Amino acid sequence: MRPPLPSLQLAERVCTGERRAIARMLSRAEAGSDEAREALDLIYRRAGNAHVVGITGVPGSGKSTLVAKLAAAVLKSGRKIGIIAVDPSSPFSGGSILGDRIRMGEVSGDPSVFVRSMATRGALGGLARGTLEAVDILDAAGYDMIFIETVGVGQDEVDVVRAAHTTVVVSAPGLGDDIQAIKAGILEIADVHAVSKGDKPEADKTVSDLKSMLGLGLPAAGLRRAVPVVKICSPREEGIGELLAEIDAHRDYLVSSGEYEPRRQAIRERRMLKAAEHVLHEEFERHREGRMAGLLAALADASISPQTAARQLLAHIGMEVRE
Amino acid sequence: MRPPLPSLQLAERVCTGERRAIARMLSRAEAGSDEAREALDLIYRRAGNAHVVGITGVPGSGKSTLVAKLAAAVLKSGRKIGIIAVDPSSPFSGGSILGDRIRMGEVSGDPSVFVRSMATRGALGGLARGTLEAVDILDAAGYDMIFIETVGVGQDEVDVVRAAHTTVVVSAPGLGDDIQAIKAGILEIADVHAVSKGDKPEADKTVSDLKSMLGLGLPAAGLRRAVPVVKICSPREEGIGELLAEIDAHRDYLVSSGEYEPRRQAIRERRMLKAAEHVLHEEFERHREGRMAGLLAALADASISPQTAARQLLAHIGMEVRE
Repeated sequence: MRPPLPSLQLAERVCTGERRAIARMLSRAEAGSDEAREALDLIYRRAGNAHVVGITGVPGSGKSTLVAKLAAAVLKSGRKIGIIAVDPSSPFSGGSILGDRIRMGEVSGDPSVFVRSMATRGALGGLARGTLEAVDILDAAGYDMIFIETVGVGQDEVDVVRAAHTTVVVSAPGLGDDIQAIKAGILEIADVHAVSKGDKPEADKTVSDLKSMLGLGLPAAGLRRAVPVVKICSPREEGIGELLAEIDAHRDYLVSSGEYEPRRQAIRERRMLKAAEHVLHEEFERHREGRMAGLLAALADASISPQTAARQLLAHIGMEVRE
Repeated sequence: MRPPLPSLQLAERVCTGERRAIARMLSRAEAGSDEAREALDLIYRRAGNAHVVGITGVPGSGKSTLVAKLAAAVLKSGRKIGIIAVDPSSPFSGGSILGDRIRMGEVSGDPSVFVRSMATRGALGGLARGTLEAVDILDAAGYDMIFIETVGVGQDEVDVVRAAHTTVVVSAPGLGDDIQAIKAGILEIADVHAVSKGDKPEADKTVSDLKSMLGLGLPAAGLRRAVPVVKICSPREEGIGELLAEIDAHRDYLVSSGEYEPRRQAIRERRMLKAAEHVLHEEFERHREGRMAGLLAALADASISPQTAARQLLAHIGMEVRE
């Protein structure tokens, strides 16, 4: 057996677009190994050209079908497309989802497409970190547009969606009394709204409900751009081209309005803060029985408050990370 | 005008149960002023005797009426009761909610009752921190039982509820197709379930749905105690005594099973980690234009990754908090 390729070498191959290298680097990123950190730093520096599009909607909203059709439209436009599917609540693990996607046929077998399913659970912020590193990898590997597909609930999920340049929120008519984006609290993060199942008679009501709500609430939030609402019927391929045009238009808008760079910097800052929180928890757990034991004992006999303990913890970890 | 009382002196008065001192200390805690930190540390060390009960349920579940009736039952049992109402989504600010409560009559005017409404918004973890410090204050002031009333959605809200010794989840029949605790993802944090509006014919179905779901899912989660489901009709005062008995029984169970101390320590650790995250964000924002400027510039030109930046940030802040 040959020894595994050093991560830095693997990273160089990722940047040439080699599929096997991409797949292996994605696995290392998902595992969150320390050894991959330097390689991911290199990849991060090479990334930054892709248009990252978050696509979110509750289960049953027709989001996955829409993603497949939309990916096909991106391909037709001559661009390479990466898809990262995040669904930690799905009973199917990564493999099965990937299988489903490949069976979908629509976008499989084409070298200009890369599909990856993320199933990381557990650790705080682990899902978000792994997913965003996967975006970096596909970005550095030369994919022009990257979809992050996710159900729009939970803190980690919201973190993922907020790391996209353009966010599409998919709502389906008849899934409940209200528009699902409101329930999930993601109405305000949509740059483009898609209403799926456009062949249903109720779809028009969902579209007009969304439009009136957007007209009502969002100007107050300081929005400088009207959020489009696109009606889709994926099986009939209706609205797909229009939706892609709106996604492209949103990036053009970001660039021409001067909002693109501030948005990217805000994303980088959020990623940094999330990563710092992750290190905080990780280092605390790692040294629980060692360096943190005194702190924990003081906490247990209530001789220090959680606020004071927090500052001591940060002082400890500050030293830790410098070592 | 006299100068404001130093916080440490105020804290001493809080520990004697003086109402005006409690109210002023609560305001200082809610404002999150640095100056109050030492005083809150003193209060924290004097606290630890109260039974902290989280009561959560979606708007419309009848939670507020239930809290008022339950508080009256605690009073009748000869105990002092503190109530902290958290509802950041409410259009009424702190004052109005408090006003409503006082108008409710049920528990007002009695020196053995203290009601406080928290309306802190904005800063990450600010709501949770302020609320838990308010619990410490009422605890140190000698209140035997403290209710934290909150709508059970949002990360901050969940953090608050997880800081209680006993959590009551209130569901109402007919608010939707499903049990609201599932929608909110808080089914698993309930120590006691209350089904309100017990006079409605659908209430029995909600009770049996909850019971079958509890029977189905929770043994797998390693639960060592059957979670009781109590049907309530607050206007008719039905089920209130039984609910209080179940809340008391839960604390007895925690103590006799040996789970009380580990649960309290877990709460302290979570509070410490949350406080550390808060300091992290605060220090970052505070030094954004100063010490963090170099880090932000490196992040902006993508010469370092968010992961690497995170470790540098922690190193900076570790030094900061030691100064």
